[in-house]
Amino acid sequence: MKLIVDLKDRQYPIWIERKALYHIDEIINTHRKIAIIHDDAIPSKWIEIVKEQCENCVIFSFPEGENSKCFEQYQYLLQQCIDHHLSRKDAIVAIGGGVTGDLAGFVASTYMRGIDFYNIPTTILSQVDSSVGGKVAIDMGSYKNIVGSFYQPKGVLIDPDVLSTLSIRQQHNGLVEALKMGLILDENLVCEFEKEQLDIEAIITRSIDLKRQVVQEDEKENSLRKILNFGHTIGHAIEGAYGLDTYYHGECVAMGMLFFIEDKELKNRVLKIYDKLSLPAVPDYDVDTLMEFISHDKKGTQNVISVISVAKAGSYSIEEMNYEQIRLKLLRGAYEESNRK
Amino acid sequence: MKLIVDLKDRQYPIWIERKALYHIDEIINTHRKIAIIHDDAIPSKWIEIVKEQCENCVIFSFPEGENSKCFEQYQYLLQQCIDHHLSRKDAIVAIGGGVTGDLAGFVASTYMRGIDFYNIPTTILSQVDSSVGGKVAIDMGSYKNIVGSFYQPKGVLIDPDVLSTLSIRQQHNGLVEALKMGLILDENLVCEFEKEQLDIEAIITRSIDLKRQVVQEDEKENSLRKILNFGHTIGHAIEGAYGLDTYYHGECVAMGMLFFIEDKELKNRVLKIYDKLSLPAVPDYDVDTLMEFISHDKKGTQNVISVISVAKAGSYSIEEMNYEQIRLKLLRGAYEESNRK
Ligand SMILES: NC(=O)c1ccc[n+]([C@@H]2O[C@H](COP(=O)([O-])OP(=O)(O)OC[C@H]3O[C@@H](n4cnc5c(N)ncnc54)[C@H](O)[C@@H]3O)[C@@H](O)[C@H]2O)c1
Ligand SMILES: NC(=O)c1ccc[n+]([C@@H]2O[C@H](COP(=O)([O-])OP(=O)(O)OC[C@H]3O[C@@H](n4cnc5c(N)ncnc54)[C@H](O)[C@@H]3O)[C@@H](O)[C@H]2O)c1
Ligand SMILES: [Zn+2]
Ligand SMILES: [Zn+2]
Repeated sequence: MKLIVDLKDRQYPIWIERKALYHIDEIINTHRKIAIIHDDAIPSKWIEIVKEQCENCVIFSFPEGENSKCFEQYQYLLQQCIDHHLSRKDAIVAIGGGVTGDLAGFVASTYMRGIDFYNIPTTILSQVDSSVGGKVAIDMGSYKNIVGSFYQPKGVLIDPDVLSTLSIRQQHNGLVEALKMGLILDENLVCEFEKEQLDIEAIITRSIDLKRQVVQEDEKENSLRKILNFGHTIGHAIEGAYGLDTYYHGECVAMGMLFFIEDKELKNRVLKIYDKLSLPAVPDYDVDTLMEFISHDKKGTQNVISVISVAKAGSYSIEEMNYEQIRLKLLRGAYEESNRK
Repeated sequence: MKLIVDLKDRQYPIWIERKALYHIDEIINTHRKIAIIHDDAIPSKWIEIVKEQCENCVIFSFPEGENSKCFEQYQYLLQQCIDHHLSRKDAIVAIGGGVTGDLAGFVASTYMRGIDFYNIPTTILSQVDSSVGGKVAIDMGSYKNIVGSFYQPKGVLIDPDVLSTLSIRQQHNGLVEALKMGLILDENLVCEFEKEQLDIEAIITRSIDLKRQVVQEDEKENSLRKILNFGHTIGHAIEGAYGLDTYYHGECVAMGMLFFIEDKELKNRVLKIYDKLSLPAVPDYDVDTLMEFISHDKKGTQNVISVISVAKAGSYSIEEMNYEQIRLKLLRGAYEESNRK
């Protein structure tokens, strides 16, 4: 299936299909130099399949993990582009998770002021979330995604078969972002998670379609796109304070969403889905510690934070909260009014 | 006078007026945090005038010169933005020549994926050329402008009075780029240079207006915008090989244009203008050395180069030349068929 992302001044396809990886020329013009960028932990067989379809390709790899979204790797990859004589007419193809897409995308957006960029996301998280929408970035110190661009890819290729090598925990981690899309925008998608057997392909497709619509409305995150931060205010804080080497991003977002699900019945439904995905419980936390991370996230630039809440599956509300109100949420806890605890 | 740059999805004003520097709120919303970026060689009085008009401003400065268009300064300025809590709603204002505009513009284009950028160019070169068109960039090693973005400013403010502190040589250097615009697009502008007394303000305005039209046609330099490279193929090579600490960029462009002015009479007219501007003569050069710089410039990615020639003032032709043809040009020399040499 091909979805088209239709923006004001350009459009591009997201091609979702089993075995798509064997037919990249369906969306990528391979008759030029292609720089494949990947991390060193993705199974090499996926890289090989793509490589064999390119006439003239060079391969740049970097160490896996969030730490590679940094200036050092950014500069290294740009230097590789120069050393391998990549021209303005050539292209960069990212194969990997969100880290690879964000880093390679930022390189593509700035090398020679922007060359063609294609994304082949290979984690569920990157398939349903980071590969769609054109946000590319690196981190600086403790500030995530603080340096980057809005730079839309020329095309996105999603082959659900590549998930065969991804750990179950990583799969569930990515599914949280899809569940998030359902909770704010589409109850049917939430229901997909309640089926006996998860239809991963259906979930990915539905979830991308929703994100696509949000991005079409608000490419540069001036308003609507902020709803995608549902669960992220407290989620990011937990990730920062307790997540390192312990929790994945999606797991923290799952925790973060609980604080802003404002209906007892819905919260219990969601907790059941969390059990199915074997997501970890919210750890004991120190309110002040989390509050510090939250204000750090806002870089001291705001007194109020736009917070997304969900009372009914498939719809959201936006509220401006001050820090005191958020502290109250933390004091009440994630499981308030639920069957847990 | 206000010129409007009208692009597909946004437009912005270029305000050209004596004393405009005292009225920045005419184009800049100063009721927010403003980060002023400048180099350490611009007279401080120009910075003070702007600073006094801002409610809440922070000032970042860097060492003057092309060498500052580098990763180190880029990273330093981004870190300053973070340390001073610049938010997405705040703005960066560049005050200075092309180096300042290119560097500060690249910072603005990537900090938080892009914040408002205003340019106050203070050299003739930056007023007539670099401040218009949205090209921002830094250099990497010997590759100029290899990393950057197309990022249009929110507004450009040009106060010809700031040129009072600029050396005559720097002024003439910048005027070459204006003369270039005239040679390819507008004979009247060439005639301006033949008047007894140069009307700098008229030259700046006319020249910007021409560049504006080219950029409107072809924002991302896919075709038409390449004509602005008139004189730059050989000019850059001379700059690279013999320019360091000896010639300014505009002076080299002036030399480079001579090789591609294909009419004896026009060449003599242009040489007269060069005398008036006290531009240096083309030095003795080694053909092989220049050829090396030319192919280095193309990063080994092309076998032919688009070359712009002018046979009649105000019109140009584009030709694909291979390296052999360019070598022939160099062998013939810059002054061929002219009254010189
Ligand atoms: N740009 C956006 O809009 C956006 C949105 C959400 C998240 N993100 C970013 O995404 C990043 C997280 O992405 P992620 O969770 O995909 O992390 P990741 O890219 O680090 O991938 C996780 C791990 O899975 C491995 N891997 C990838 N594909 C595999 C496969 N098919 N089989 C086996 N292993 C595989 C990777 O090598 C890595 O070790 C974060 O940096 C986050 O900021 C960006
Ligand atoms: N972005 C574009 O489209 C574009 C086009 C052409 C050139 N450029 C770039 O522009 C740069 C050259 O610009 P430049 O020639 O303005 O150099 P510059 O910015 O280095 O300025 C030259 C010198 O003049 C000083 N100066 C600036 N304003 C002054 C004033 N009013 N009074 C006294 N001194 C003043 C500066 O401090 C500096 O020492 C190059 O890096 C080039 O790549 C960019
Ligand atoms: Zn997320
Ligand atoms: Zn120039």
